[in-house]
Amino acid sequence: MEVNGGSSKEMPGFLTRVWQGIISIFAMVKSCFRGFFERVWKLGKDDPRRVVHSLKVGLALTLVSLFYFMRPLYDGVGGMAIWAVMTVVVVFEYSVGATLSKGLNRGFATLLAGSLAVGVHELASLSGDKSEPIILGISVFLQATVFTFLRFFPTIKTRYDYGAMIFILTFSLVSVSGYRVDKLLEMAHQRLSTILIGSALCVLVSMLVCPVWAGEDLHNLIAKNLDKLAASVEGVVAENFKEGEGEEEGEINEENPSVLGYKCVLNSKPTEEALANFARWEPAHGPFGFRHPWKQYLKIGMAARYCAYSLEALNACTNSDSQAAQELTQHLKAVCTKVGHVSSDLLLDLSSTVKKMTTSSHTDLLVAQLNIAVQELQLALKILSNPLPVHVSIPDIVLIATVASLTVEISARVEDVAEAVEELSRIAHFKTETAEENKQKAATIKALADSDGPHVAIHVDSL
Amino acid sequence: MEVNGGSSKEMPGFLTRVWQGIISIFAMVKSCFRGFFERVWKLGKDDPRRVVHSLKVGLALTLVSLFYFMRPLYDGVGGMAIWAVMTVVVVFEYSVGATLSKGLNRGFATLLAGSLAVGVHELASLSGDKSEPIILGISVFLQATVFTFLRFFPTIKTRYDYGAMIFILTFSLVSVSGYRVDKLLEMAHQRLSTILIGSALCVLVSMLVCPVWAGEDLHNLIAKNLDKLAASVEGVVAENFKEGEGEEEGEINEENPSVLGYKCVLNSKPTEEALANFARWEPAHGPFGFRHPWKQYLKIGMAARYCAYSLEALNACTNSDSQAAQELTQHLKAVCTKVGHVSSDLLLDLSSTVKKMTTSSHTDLLVAQLNIAVQELQLALKILSNPLPVHVSIPDIVLIATVASLTVEISARVEDVAEAVEELSRIAHFKTETAEENKQKAATIKALADSDGPHVAIHVDSL
Repeated sequence: MEVNGGSSKEMPGFLTRVWQGIISIFAMVKSCFRGFFERVWKLGKDDPRRVVHSLKVGLALTLVSLFYFMRPLYDGVGGMAIWAVMTVVVVFEYSVGATLSKGLNRGFATLLAGSLAVGVHELASLSGDKSEPIILGISVFLQATVFTFLRFFPTIKTRYDYGAMIFILTFSLVSVSGYRVDKLLEMAHQRLSTILIGSALCVLVSMLVCPVWAGEDLHNLIAKNLDKLAASVEGVVAENFKEGEGEEEGEINEENPSVLGYKCVLNSKPTEEALANFARWEPAHGPFGFRHPWKQYLKIGMAARYCAYSLEALNACTNSDSQAAQELTQHLKAVCTKVGHVSSDLLLDLSSTVKKMTTSSHTDLLVAQLNIAVQELQLALKILSNPLPVHVSIPDIVLIATVASLTVEISARVEDVAEAVEELSRIAHFKTETAEENKQKAATIKALADSDGPHVAIHVDSL
Repeated sequence: MEVNGGSSKEMPGFLTRVWQGIISIFAMVKSCFRGFFERVWKLGKDDPRRVVHSLKVGLALTLVSLFYFMRPLYDGVGGMAIWAVMTVVVVFEYSVGATLSKGLNRGFATLLAGSLAVGVHELASLSGDKSEPIILGISVFLQATVFTFLRFFPTIKTRYDYGAMIFILTFSLVSVSGYRVDKLLEMAHQRLSTILIGSALCVLVSMLVCPVWAGEDLHNLIAKNLDKLAASVEGVVAENFKEGEGEEEGEINEENPSVLGYKCVLNSKPTEEALANFARWEPAHGPFGFRHPWKQYLKIGMAARYCAYSLEALNACTNSDSQAAQELTQHLKAVCTKVGHVSSDLLLDLSSTVKKMTTSSHTDLLVAQLNIAVQELQLALKILSNPLPVHVSIPDIVLIATVASLTVEISARVEDVAEAVEELSRIAHFKTETAEENKQKAATIKALADSDGPHVAIHVDSL
């Protein structure tokens, strides 16, 4: 009885625990789902083109499925509709360039390898039943070895890697399956036509429904990176002259993410190279001609990256002790900040040149201003030391000298970026700014300059 | 007659030209071929594993062709041998990790998508002949859209991208071809088994014949990068104190490529990440356990990269004017060079720790030496300015201050590398050095130190 009584007493407690367990599991599942959907939402919101791309893949696959669902289409490709479906899945990529690159690689490689394999198969079948599999086996081994090795060539790796793989695939499939299939030529022909249909469908959907151009993405990425650098150059230089402790400065850095924008530029190389590689496959679109100099964008990217390396070194200085030489710091603050400010303006101007594909009439002026600002900085250092205050020791000026020196270094690298952009504008025949745009821009630059506190006066007339 | 005479005179000249043309074409073709074969030879010589990999692919493909050439094997897979061949071509990758990653992704995705597609197909066939293609079409559209979108998730993109693509492929193929094929379940089963056979063959050949482990490659790459940094740190710091003109220094830089070794480290991020990603799929091999902390290698790589950024900034100083303050430069040469030298020794020691997977007893000593060297540098700056020579102006000391400051910065970043290596050795349970190794190493370090000209004496006893 005691046992029974005990279990009947425990029963409600046990049930409650089970119930609570179920509820907590539900809550967990619910929060998991909510977390998942929040991430999905964020992913789609960050770049709505991702959602559009997913819908495009769904559309292309549904269209190609019609080859199965409609009798005349299915018979037309002799039951080989499977290759069309497969082609759509593997060829459809995010950007038009990537899709074109894969589609063309797949089409040409299939054509070449198919022809070669049919030839080898004919030769092998002439040699008699016994030696046929041996000849086929050797030919498969040889072509796989040679083409796999060719895939290590840098040129082939970047542009024709997929083609080389499809070559190996098609050659092996056609030559060895020829051993079992009677109507080899017909099979090869049907395979080729379904692959061409699949590739063409991908390219059409990719180009006609909200196209994503790798070239445009590269163009925007480079302009965006120059904007980020502009914000960072001005921010990092200014941070070094903020009054207060090192720790506080660190906090300001975290609060102000635009200062750290240059960090994105440090690692943008692989993205830029991939986009430039795809962009070369794309036809003329928007403002970009057929042979738009995409490689030049990589040069701008490289120049921007070198600028970011120096910024990284300068940013590391921020946390050093800066109290020892307040006097010197105050003296150099205006000139250093000005170099940072003009560098930043120049970068913004270059970014706008890239964005609008219009050479700016202000670039030369800003380069000249930057040179003057650098000279002023060097002059300020000279004036400072004539006579050198007796209470100043070398460790006091190490930090400020480093900041000044790195600021000059950064300005030199910004000028390299300006040169690369100038070269692009020349090669790609950028338009020249009209008088109207010119006026508007001058007003914007003036407004920007006015909003930025006191500067050392520059007499541009004296240029 | 004249005309005839003229043409008979011209004839030999014409023939000679044709002959010369043919010869020059032959010579061109010959030089093209020679150039091509020289490049092939170089590619194979640089990394003979490439040749071995190509032969392995040839071997695997020839083995899988046996499914066509041998009747019992061919009948065994119901004529679906095509999938095994295809799997070998697309799954076989350079490293074991990449092959395993692709093979497992392909196997699991095919299994999952196949089961789901058979289920959807059964459901659709219950709904009647007219609505079946509609239901199938909608299901293909939905799964393609959803899974294409999922491929944008960073986690899925890095590890399961190929699986997601194969899921879309298999689901589409099985569900739509089910509309035309009667024995769907049998087909799906045969496809799955041939894919498993192909994947297993790839994994076996890849692991058993001269395996290339991504983990080992990552391990060696990190150690090699630390070696390169070590050479660069010492080289770049020393370059700044070379006597002579800026131009000459530039030439020395070009002559001495080891100084510029750090440039490789600047852009090694994508390679390191790809290798770490593949290494996670690999089983235990050599000295690496199953859950070897590959992510920690990425942290070391990141710390090394930050060190390279500072080196890049310091290297840019080399070309500045350095004549103004020869006196200061000479005074600081010994201490700065010493910081560079000890940093370099520490990096070499860390590289050897990583290489041998054995914690070095010298690391702590070298870190302490580095701290002392940095203090000495700061002390040297203080002594220098007490009293400051009257003829020294601030612009004179800007360069030397920058070099000193960046050298200190680099030493701090080298210490970050040391911390990351220390963490790795703790997590991965590195061995401790034996007394014998210890002695040998001390002798080597002594020899290195002796061979490197005069240094400021350090009394390690006083530590």
